[in-house]
Amino acid sequence: MKKFKKYYLSEKEMPTQWYNIMADMPNKPKPPLHPGTKQPLGPEDLAPLFPMELIKQEVATEKWIDIPEEVLDIYKIWRPSPLIRAYNLEKLLDAPVKIYYKYEGVSPAGSHKPNTAVPQAYYNYKEGVKRITTETGAGQWGSALSFATQFFDIDLQVFMVKVSYNQKPYRKSMINTWGANVVPSPSNLTEVGRAILEKDPDNPGSLGIAISEAVEMAVKDPDTKYSLGSVLNHVLMHQTVIGLEALKQFELADDYPDIVIGCFGGGSNFAGISFPFLKENFEKGKKTRAIAVEPYSCPKLTRGEFRYDFGDSVGMTPLIPMYTLGHTFMPPKIHAGGLRYHGAGAIVSQLLKDGLIEAAAVHQLECFDAGVKFARAEGIIPAPESTHAIAQVFREARKAKEEGVEKTILFNLSGHGLVDMASYDQYFAGNLHDYSVSDDEIKKNLEALDSLGV
Amino acid sequence: MKKFKKYYLSEKEMPTQWYNIMADMPNKPKPPLHPGTKQPLGPEDLAPLFPMELIKQEVATEKWIDIPEEVLDIYKIWRPSPLIRAYNLEKLLDAPVKIYYKYEGVSPAGSHKPNTAVPQAYYNYKEGVKRITTETGAGQWGSALSFATQFFDIDLQVFMVKVSYNQKPYRKSMINTWGANVVPSPSNLTEVGRAILEKDPDNPGSLGIAISEAVEMAVKDPDTKYSLGSVLNHVLMHQTVIGLEALKQFELADDYPDIVIGCFGGGSNFAGISFPFLKENFEKGKKTRAIAVEPYSCPKLTRGEFRYDFGDSVGMTPLIPMYTLGHTFMPPKIHAGGLRYHGAGAIVSQLLKDGLIEAAAVHQLECFDAGVKFARAEGIIPAPESTHAIAQVFREARKAKEEGVEKTILFNLSGHGLVDMASYDQYFAGNLHDYSVSDDEIKKNLEALDSLGV
Repeated sequence: MKKFKKYYLSEKEMPTQWYNIMADMPNKPKPPLHPGTKQPLGPEDLAPLFPMELIKQEVATEKWIDIPEEVLDIYKIWRPSPLIRAYNLEKLLDAPVKIYYKYEGVSPAGSHKPNTAVPQAYYNYKEGVKRITTETGAGQWGSALSFATQFFDIDLQVFMVKVSYNQKPYRKSMINTWGANVVPSPSNLTEVGRAILEKDPDNPGSLGIAISEAVEMAVKDPDTKYSLGSVLNHVLMHQTVIGLEALKQFELADDYPDIVIGCFGGGSNFAGISFPFLKENFEKGKKTRAIAVEPYSCPKLTRGEFRYDFGDSVGMTPLIPMYTLGHTFMPPKIHAGGLRYHGAGAIVSQLLKDGLIEAAAVHQLECFDAGVKFARAEGIIPAPESTHAIAQVFREARKAKEEGVEKTILFNLSGHGLVDMASYDQYFAGNLHDYSVSDDEIKKNLEALDSLGV
Repeated sequence: MKKFKKYYLSEKEMPTQWYNIMADMPNKPKPPLHPGTKQPLGPEDLAPLFPMELIKQEVATEKWIDIPEEVLDIYKIWRPSPLIRAYNLEKLLDAPVKIYYKYEGVSPAGSHKPNTAVPQAYYNYKEGVKRITTETGAGQWGSALSFATQFFDIDLQVFMVKVSYNQKPYRKSMINTWGANVVPSPSNLTEVGRAILEKDPDNPGSLGIAISEAVEMAVKDPDTKYSLGSVLNHVLMHQTVIGLEALKQFELADDYPDIVIGCFGGGSNFAGISFPFLKENFEKGKKTRAIAVEPYSCPKLTRGEFRYDFGDSVGMTPLIPMYTLGHTFMPPKIHAGGLRYHGAGAIVSQLLKDGLIEAAAVHQLECFDAGVKFARAEGIIPAPESTHAIAQVFREARKAKEEGVEKTILFNLSGHGLVDMASYDQYFAGNLHDYSVSDDEIKKNLEALDSLGV
């Protein structure tokens, strides 16, 4: 029979501050630029989109930011989340590794996303905002934000990437049940959406396009703000509760990870699990490796370029210094919809550029294979996004075995897959494929950025 | 903004024994009878179906039964489950009530069912069983048992009620992902199933039919045992961890419930939340009311008769003394598939007969209305089954307001609805209906029992 060990924290041991890695980075990210003037952005440029407190957090350099009491109260619905020793996966892999995972699927939305959705909704509420727009890929962010905004009686309009809207109808239903509106993107609610649909009525959508639509709607209405579920500094910071809890739980386990792994779309769950361990690297000279795992079919970290690019597909957002495939890159229709994004957050990109984190890319079938094995070993069915982290754990275990070196591995199980079972059905039926992206395709989209002149 | 309070238990405070209400009942249930001889069953009659330890528990009269260490270890993956004060629902209902709910959706299968699936799989494993059959309605039991059997390397064959198999494809996928086999019932894997399909190829199935198929397969193969997710004494007892935890959590809250509510299919989640409070009634003369809530369309507790009947539809199982609509009763196709069962467990039936618990019946639309309001107030989307408990909370709150009497209410949120979002879609689209059952229909099915002569 199988064996388990969960490391438990009480509510009293929950972190009361977020960790801001900006304070410790040897090289700070270059500033975001205004999309029109190409000059560094000021707070006033962001004011139409975000409440002032989040704008302050976006540029904050203090190491610790207090989590408001009201946010902590809501966190407690599902936090602290468990850290679990994956004894059965260890046995299956038969390698000299100890494996731990932090399980974020315990939130009512089923993923890590509420960790930032709740504070974002809270700060908007504090500043009197009545309506928010956002985009969502697989629907994890859209459902998390609809979960959060209903606590504060804020209206929410979600633009959901069309391919996911069709593949993942349950997340759309969750958004509706929590009382928000959701449309497939590209939609006819915005100029951006209408223009795309006119040229290409069957456009499957992308996170970049959905961001363009949500931003357009927010900019045009002074009573509406915009909310982003990843990429930005404040979003990544909110997620550090994950790793801060894990640090305390490793004390209980009397252990410490050599390797920390998270899947990677825009950076938020990866940052959440890894930044607190990078803090230990900075402060105490620890040598934990942090590995961001992206889909092979959307390889911005492993095959993209580090340069200024837009956060959206159309070019409405500020220019961000990041690893990118070009904002015009259209990711293949893999089932890990939350990872179908052309770029990466500024902080994560700078860390990668400076060699302080690593990146890896894995194929879809390898991920589902690892995900099913994990479900059968540990009893939790992972979200397709999270299977990328698990596939990398398998690789690291194989490597440890080949090299005969003992390793302790921590990964973030960022969400459960109960709302993604159609993807598993497709996998079992043999209908899923791997997708590669040609060098020419990447080059073409990156060269298009040259005209930006930054 | 909204307000929350979660009452937390540490792993150390988890119950280490199940509560066996048989010890305290003023009138014990009459014995189950052999379906052929109509004589009281002996352990040897059950041996083809269950491992000996579960047979012992089925007839045990000790008040406390130790939970094996191995089971506790697996429970700890998701237990203790939270007790949450539903401040926001209270505000919405605007009545003199305090409302608490115990949230069982935190288990990896998303419902309370693993509380008994894990010990059942464990005892089978201990006695060398290699293969188990079972039935499932909405799929919560089948998915929970597939979650549990994989821990012990036991093969599992699930017969899933056809209407739910089609309405709830995700639960089927979960069962596959955890490595078990699942077929729609009636199936052509059994004589029972083939006979039904021959007469009625479009038969939507029922829990009773699925039980017949699972039992037939187990009886015919000496290496195969059978497992039931509700109704039986040992199943109800395993679920008492829910109420035992809640008792401790109410101490932390410095409060105590006047009313305890659970939805009702065969009795397991209702028993789990209520029996430990009945214990306090027995021991300390407390007066907590326990209310079992069934669908209006499947009203065995409120409109059935107390008499011996089969647990399945075909008449293969022992005869159980219970409230029943007759084993030939075919419940309408409501979305709360887990509550579509003609009968009730022997213990719960005896308690109802003796006036120690109460029963209520609610319509489907009233349930979804309450479920959506709960989701928007408290942030958790309930399973369609669990919405029956919530609808009753609404009724009790209205009554308390009319009567001007303060009440403290506890209900069991037995599972989340993330795998049932198609039901919510149907509800929002206006496609759901209420179903009533005529007196003639009930009478016809009950009269058919007369020929049993017991």
